[in-house]
Amino acid sequence: MTFTPYAADPELDLVLEREVDVSPDLVWEAWTTPEHIKVWFAPKPYETPECEIDLRPGGAFRTVMRSPEGEEYPGVGCYLEVVPNERLTWTSALAPGFRPVVAPDGMPFTAIIELQPTASGGTRYRAVAIHQDPEARKSHEEMGFVEGWGAALDQLVALAKTLRT
Amino acid sequence: MTFTPYAADPELDLVLEREVDVSPDLVWEAWTTPEHIKVWFAPKPYETPECEIDLRPGGAFRTVMRSPEGEEYPGVGCYLEVVPNERLTWTSALAPGFRPVVAPDGMPFTAIIELQPTASGGTRYRAVAIHQDPEARKSHEEMGFVEGWGAALDQLVALAKTLRT
Repeated sequence: MTFTPYAADPELDLVLEREVDVSPDLVWEAWTTPEHIKVWFAPKPYETPECEIDLRPGGAFRTVMRSPEGEEYPGVGCYLEVVPNERLTWTSALAPGFRPVVAPDGMPFTAIIELQPTASGGTRYRAVAIHQDPEARKSHEEMGFVEGWGAALDQLVALAKTLRT
Repeated sequence: MTFTPYAADPELDLVLEREVDVSPDLVWEAWTTPEHIKVWFAPKPYETPECEIDLRPGGAFRTVMRSPEGEEYPGVGCYLEVVPNERLTWTSALAPGFRPVVAPDGMPFTAIIELQPTASGGTRYRAVAIHQDPEARKSHEEMGFVEGWGAALDQLVALAKTLRT
């Protein structure tokens, strides 16, 4: 299948794009294994004490993040696309089972992780956050999407390097 | 792949299930071809003058229905699952491109059409409408979901019998 990147809208979407020196299959494993998510998902000093994954379209992606002060931030999304080693999509606008969410918080978004192999054995990594309107995009940007997801990606890469060595 | 029917929740979901005497591939063709949708989708005397289909996860399903008085009812959904001759899923809670909808109308829902071949060459047809809460389910029921989708299914079957004969 030819790889087609998501056509992001600069007015509505946020994009983090980087080349990392671990292979797509290891990045995929890090994104789809609860024990791994618990290690890398929250930028330190935040932690991710809980994670559940039902890896299929319609399945649940549940996490709980915890601040150093002990405040907890539960998150739940519904997987939409599961293409191993290539594309993982989920949204907080739907509950598991594709069910519309009663009252989405102020900033529901859909996330797409795209992975492409590089000639040197690494991964061209692209994360797109898709929002309902420019205000939601701005709010997510001000929360530090690029910095936060970038710091988490560093943690993912560090973890991935410990796998299959 | 083993067929797994959607686990409908009787408190939240509506289900239309029937056996029809046309094959799954003809039902699929009727559901995924704009010219066919225009013929069968709206229970008469309503009509469907417009339909656009971009048949892929993330693609758009757009229709305009028209009452005998000329009032128009546009609808747009985002396809979630496209498994030919077996399962078609879309939602009005997401705009095309998996984008969360700014202000979904009072009753956003996800629809799943499941098709299974019968021994006699027909189709076990199941449509599930998935709602956010019991009130949305009730509202959709009172709008006549089962009768309306049933009448449209009769029209679909009549059309399908004219295909490939």
